Amino acid sequence: MSVRDFALILAGGGGTRLWPASRRRRPKQLLTLGSDESLLVAAFRRAAGIFGVSNTLVVTAADQTQAVASALPSLPPDNLISEPLPRNTAAAVGLGVALVARRAGNDAVLAVMPSDAHIGDETRFAQIVRTALDQARTTIVTIGIKPTHPETGFGYLRVGPAVAPGVFEVAAFVEKPSLDKARQYLASGDHHWNSGMFFFTAGRLLAEARTHMPALGEALDAIVAAADPTATIAALYPGVPAISIDYGIMEKASGIRVVPGDFRWNDVGSWAALTAIRPVDADGNFIAGDAVVRDSHRSVVIGEPGAPFVGVVGVADLVVVATKDAILVVPRDKAQDVRAVVEALKDAKRSDLL
Amino acid sequence: MSVRDFALILAGGGGTRLWPASRRRRPKQLLTLGSDESLLVAAFRRAAGIFGVSNTLVVTAADQTQAVASALPSLPPDNLISEPLPRNTAAAVGLGVALVARRAGNDAVLAVMPSDAHIGDETRFAQIVRTALDQARTTIVTIGIKPTHPETGFGYLRVGPAVAPGVFEVAAFVEKPSLDKARQYLASGDHHWNSGMFFFTAGRLLAEARTHMPALGEALDAIVAAADPTATIAALYPGVPAISIDYGIMEKASGIRVVPGDFRWNDVGSWAALTAIRPVDADGNFIAGDAVVRDSHRSVVIGEPGAPFVGVVGVADLVVVATKDAILVVPRDKAQDVRAVVEALKDAKRSDLL
Repeated sequence: MSVRDFALILAGGGGTRLWPASRRRRPKQLLTLGSDESLLVAAFRRAAGIFGVSNTLVVTAADQTQAVASALPSLPPDNLISEPLPRNTAAAVGLGVALVARRAGNDAVLAVMPSDAHIGDETRFAQIVRTALDQARTTIVTIGIKPTHPETGFGYLRVGPAVAPGVFEVAAFVEKPSLDKARQYLASGDHHWNSGMFFFTAGRLLAEARTHMPALGEALDAIVAAADPTATIAALYPGVPAISIDYGIMEKASGIRVVPGDFRWNDVGSWAALTAIRPVDADGNFIAGDAVVRDSHRSVVIGEPGAPFVGVVGVADLVVVATKDAILVVPRDKAQDVRAVVEALKDAKRSDLL
Repeated sequence: MSVRDFALILAGGGGTRLWPASRRRRPKQLLTLGSDESLLVAAFRRAAGIFGVSNTLVVTAADQTQAVASALPSLPPDNLISEPLPRNTAAAVGLGVALVARRAGNDAVLAVMPSDAHIGDETRFAQIVRTALDQARTTIVTIGIKPTHPETGFGYLRVGPAVAPGVFEVAAFVEKPSLDKARQYLASGDHHWNSGMFFFTAGRLLAEARTHMPALGEALDAIVAAADPTATIAALYPGVPAISIDYGIMEKASGIRVVPGDFRWNDVGSWAALTAIRPVDADGNFIAGDAVVRDSHRSVVIGEPGAPFVGVVGVADLVVVATKDAILVVPRDKAQDVRAVVEALKDAKRSDLL
């Protein structure tokens, strides 16, 4: 990679789909999920392997900065970017871009990478990233994921004509679909999931921001030019619009290309996903931590560090997750319904468990 | 009741069917099982209500004596009998009988009551006990429970001709049956479950022991006559045979009568029993402790004091029990399979959890 290629890892997300492991102060990307490496640590390891540690940056929320720093001891302090407050992904990406532009100029290439997805084939991932980076010197590039099911929780990309080996035009960005639409997309073969990974030069992104989100573009230009960028960020960041980069910029930009990625990507959208990304036993169970599971099938049983011992007998397709202060039991096919428990805890003002 | 009528509560049992709440040092009778009163406390309360506190005795194992004393602060210390070591129910009952005989003579009547069953209708229970006590002045009396299902885990009583209103001869004691036999007993209508409750005079039981278990009878006579009964018990108890009172005495004695008991007796043989003995919600769930249960049916969810919060969504016919150091998840119809977890813990020498 060029010394002017940078990875920008987005690590500011929240979410409750992996409660009770995920909490306000311990979001999904900080979880190990029965492995010995968090999703964030894996994302950093993958990025640093391609871009080098000194060219890998992480942007995160103010209240997660300490946790991210602890999780990534080899991340240079200057490469940890803290948002003064949450302003969604267009602003978070813009902030990283402005700081890279200060450091390496407008021709620097950035690879924006979410921190909360699992990637099964890291060798293939590195190949795809290199293909995308080559394209990013001339336009904006994204990575598309071939759908495996009619997912309604993701945005999609409609893939257009090929422009180079393994590289296609993006015909359109498509918002999260209904189930019917998602089924059509799956059948069509020309719709890919939007992975949230984007590649572009700093100058291109700043130009797109000026065009499509002028308030953001102005703030970013000021940060690039600032004598004291920290003070400028603190002054201007609260005023930028809180819009996703997909909606605020990518859907409006032209000439975007997509590199289809076949590296076993999984967004770990619920506990049910773990049997797809972790090694399962002969009965299809994924078991981690201090647990005994007998006469059970296709289940996920996790005892996090500090949790009570977990004994499970005679179940099928069940999720059991124990932490030191909370336990979840839910069928795999209803794993998203964890939100019912989270809502009940919110109603009861049990902030200790959220 | 006569001042020479005594209750003798047996509280020395063990068992693992209610793990993780039940442990070696915290047997079933000491558990509250989602109520605010343990089975032992309820048994003591019922007995004391009939016999008076000063005429209610409890016999327990040496290593449970402290726990029983703590659970029953109003039990007079002289009424707490500690077995030097476990010798099964014939010896435990005999020990209580010998001490009652010392205190009140051979004509004293004893009501032997296990401490680990739940009784739903306590008013009816007291009526039945009074009927049994009246009979016990002249013979041995037991209480039979009309079967509700073909249970293979209990002994049965075959009921003979009536001898008084609500009182019948026992035609035979019947050992734990096969499932086929249990179904026949259920269909026959003349087989009742053996509740383990027995009523007799001290003199009668001592005489039966001399006849059918002479080694025990000799030891009991020595305890009755001893100048220092504590020393005599310590010297002789280890040598008495470890046999159940059913097998050692009751099956061999003659003239035994049975009072059928219809007071919603339940031996709480597993967690699945709780929906029968506790008030359930509109969906048939029994929920206790710090727990949220949503979209679930016919399930038992218990968070014991000190356990993590429990969140359950979308399950049916499931048992979830959490204590501060262990969690059990098992379908209701497999609740007996908790032993598979207990065996795994034994194999792993996890004595902290047993």
